[in-house]
Amino acid sequence: MTSPIEYARANAERFRQDLHALLRIPSVSATPELAGEVRRAGQWLVDEMTRIGFPSVELVETAGHPIVYGEWLTAGADAPTILLYGHYDVQPADRVKDNWDSEPFEPIEKDGKIIARGSTDDKGPVVAHLKAIESIIQTTGALPVNLKVIFEGEEEVSSLHLGAFVSANLDRLKADACLISDTSIYAPDIPSIVYSLRGLVYMELHVQGPKDDLHSGVYGGTVHNPAQALAEIITQLHNPDGSVAVSGFYDEVQPLSDEERAALAKVPWRKADWAMGTGLELPWGEAQYSLRERVGARPTLEINGMASGFYGEGAKTVLPAKAMAKISCRLVADQDPRRIYERVRDFVASITPATVKSEVRLLHTGDAALVDRHSQPVQAAVQAYKAGWGGAEPVFVREGGSIPIVANFQRDLGIPVVLMGFGLDTDGAHGPNEHFHVERYHKGIETIIHFYSAYADLFAAGR
Amino acid sequence: MTSPIEYARANAERFRQDLHALLRIPSVSATPELAGEVRRAGQWLVDEMTRIGFPSVELVETAGHPIVYGEWLTAGADAPTILLYGHYDVQPADRVKDNWDSEPFEPIEKDGKIIARGSTDDKGPVVAHLKAIESIIQTTGALPVNLKVIFEGEEEVSSLHLGAFVSANLDRLKADACLISDTSIYAPDIPSIVYSLRGLVYMELHVQGPKDDLHSGVYGGTVHNPAQALAEIITQLHNPDGSVAVSGFYDEVQPLSDEERAALAKVPWRKADWAMGTGLELPWGEAQYSLRERVGARPTLEINGMASGFYGEGAKTVLPAKAMAKISCRLVADQDPRRIYERVRDFVASITPATVKSEVRLLHTGDAALVDRHSQPVQAAVQAYKAGWGGAEPVFVREGGSIPIVANFQRDLGIPVVLMGFGLDTDGAHGPNEHFHVERYHKGIETIIHFYSAYADLFAAGR
Repeated sequence: MTSPIEYARANAERFRQDLHALLRIPSVSATPELAGEVRRAGQWLVDEMTRIGFPSVELVETAGHPIVYGEWLTAGADAPTILLYGHYDVQPADRVKDNWDSEPFEPIEKDGKIIARGSTDDKGPVVAHLKAIESIIQTTGALPVNLKVIFEGEEEVSSLHLGAFVSANLDRLKADACLISDTSIYAPDIPSIVYSLRGLVYMELHVQGPKDDLHSGVYGGTVHNPAQALAEIITQLHNPDGSVAVSGFYDEVQPLSDEERAALAKVPWRKADWAMGTGLELPWGEAQYSLRERVGARPTLEINGMASGFYGEGAKTVLPAKAMAKISCRLVADQDPRRIYERVRDFVASITPATVKSEVRLLHTGDAALVDRHSQPVQAAVQAYKAGWGGAEPVFVREGGSIPIVANFQRDLGIPVVLMGFGLDTDGAHGPNEHFHVERYHKGIETIIHFYSAYADLFAAGR
Repeated sequence: MTSPIEYARANAERFRQDLHALLRIPSVSATPELAGEVRRAGQWLVDEMTRIGFPSVELVETAGHPIVYGEWLTAGADAPTILLYGHYDVQPADRVKDNWDSEPFEPIEKDGKIIARGSTDDKGPVVAHLKAIESIIQTTGALPVNLKVIFEGEEEVSSLHLGAFVSANLDRLKADACLISDTSIYAPDIPSIVYSLRGLVYMELHVQGPKDDLHSGVYGGTVHNPAQALAEIITQLHNPDGSVAVSGFYDEVQPLSDEERAALAKVPWRKADWAMGTGLELPWGEAQYSLRERVGARPTLEINGMASGFYGEGAKTVLPAKAMAKISCRLVADQDPRRIYERVRDFVASITPATVKSEVRLLHTGDAALVDRHSQPVQAAVQAYKAGWGGAEPVFVREGGSIPIVANFQRDLGIPVVLMGFGLDTDGAHGPNEHFHVERYHKGIETIIHFYSAYADLFAAGR
């Protein structure tokens, strides 16, 4: 008799081709004109889940992009129920503008990588889950766990309507654990379980100077140039030591305990990985914290974009009327995103010169999250990684990114959330040439297969 | 017998309609796709000049947009020869992006204004000249001066090929004075003659951080954000007192003499005009110089544009790979644009942090110019303004803008340049809702008619 693992290996080529099919759908949730493509990607998942045997699966309408929801609840009351979450929407990508080497929505395989927008974030992991389920069903005829599946179409636009869906379906979504594969592992040979995620507050800073664009020769030198004023404000948002200068920014940040710093220090930090991922030699930021601490345990403030005046080809001697920056903060536990927004807003107001007007607008927020490392499903993930990654012991890390719904799931459903990812920080999520290593796609499928049986065993033993 | 002035008044309505026709051609020299429209505007002028009787007129090919060149040399050796210069290309304009209230290339008349891109800069004055010539010819049958006419199609892209045309035609372009209507007058009831124009150096400042756009959650806090680094660099380009901080920036700037400051102070500065033009209450800049001195007699450094990362609708949590600013300096006499570029480049290099790379690229340069206020053609302009503006005495001003070819004409042809404009600083040149007052269009035509006869008289008397 064939085992699920053997089945997955025998079907590896087809499993990749199926992922390619989903990657070809440009399901960019931020682009209104692509709403139809987002829906098409959701329908693709519904069809795929129907094909592999889900007894129940549907495209749930929301006020925005639809949610794929499926159930497979045949494992009985002695088996745990897992709420699986992933997302099928992706970040925007333009081959020319964003400097891709190939078309973002025409997946290619090269140097052992599947290259396409969404390959690592998050279509690759999503399809890996479906392939793991198919492998178990096709070889054993039954799942060892009960499954509830949410695949969201709005993760990249801050999960606008997922909260309402969860709140309206608290009974239906009841589960023993939530499983999410939307984080990175530490290194190719070091799997990792994320136990901390940062929150997020996303803002726009607008500076208004003269009422209209002016001729720089006629008014230059008498008007406070709003691009320059924006630069002056941005410069003052950080202190020379790399810390954020916004008054009160760190008020709720808990100091890292010596124990946790020691534990984090055990994670083998490789500066070479950082240098490879960034192409840089010199890091920047809070020198008293390690790089790993800076991205995981410390809040940050970043400029995501900036625009003012004329920035096309050639020369236009304009004195711009206005300037704008997109600014986001990554937050740690106990930092309330809305309160941080208010502090940024008030600080910007306090440093804005009288010669211009400024406004800080709130775009969206997401809460930070901390996961219990000692919970049963997290321990099942430890076993699954060991089995799927050739015996490698996973490490526990604080992740710099934000998955706001993790905090929501923990709060609303009261269940532990297992963050079991397969990609790498260097996969180029949100950037050009995003990729997912073929090897880790297949290792991910096997790890998921192991997870379901390990969790079922631990759960049964614990009863 | 009808006089030229009477003819111009009788034909006022048609004269405006003809200007509208030229304004409808989107001759944006900076936009490669509109090259055909630039040529069409040039051909429109050739046709119009042919219609009013120019014995010789042609569209001269260059490596870029064509030059309109015409001659009318029938006034004889006792009459002066005027080299008339204007330009028929315009700045870019987009109704939505640039916040126009009407279509930039569909001229409308409202509240006594002709509203369209190019109306004041410089199609209105160019057509005014042709209408003045037509009025003289149709009523007197002959011009009192010899005319050589250059209408350029590349003024807004730094007159890329005009210098070569002038150099190659020094004999052909020989004249007693150069006449240009591409400057503003001081106030609606105060005509003015510009005797000083600033030079220009236009640059791009590029900052490169990581090799690609990165995920702000994964790398934020460890990488010097290039948008922030650009902001830090831009902030340091000025001192807190509004002066330019670039080392050596003012080395060649001649201090304003007490006599010239006193003369400039006589020009009635109206802060209300500045406030109306800018929509602002508080000026900015070098407090020890008057606003008029700041825009005319002092060099400046302005940010013309800025771009980095994601600046579209919505949120993208990117850590940008690069950031860019367009920067230009207005220069006064004795400042060499290329040397100023080198000083900006070296200064930026000296303040660029080791965590990013920067580069300052030179886009183009133009020399500053000073005109002899006592020359015969300038005195003819004084008389013409008095006649055309109801007896108003013109004032002499230093203009903040740049017409690099003024310096070229003075240097290459060795003749005085008369800057006799009709628009206002508040006409919105280079900005949205550019307009030219109907009244000043017609006053301009009459002033030009008076200029030709006044100059002919002075010239004959001086022989």
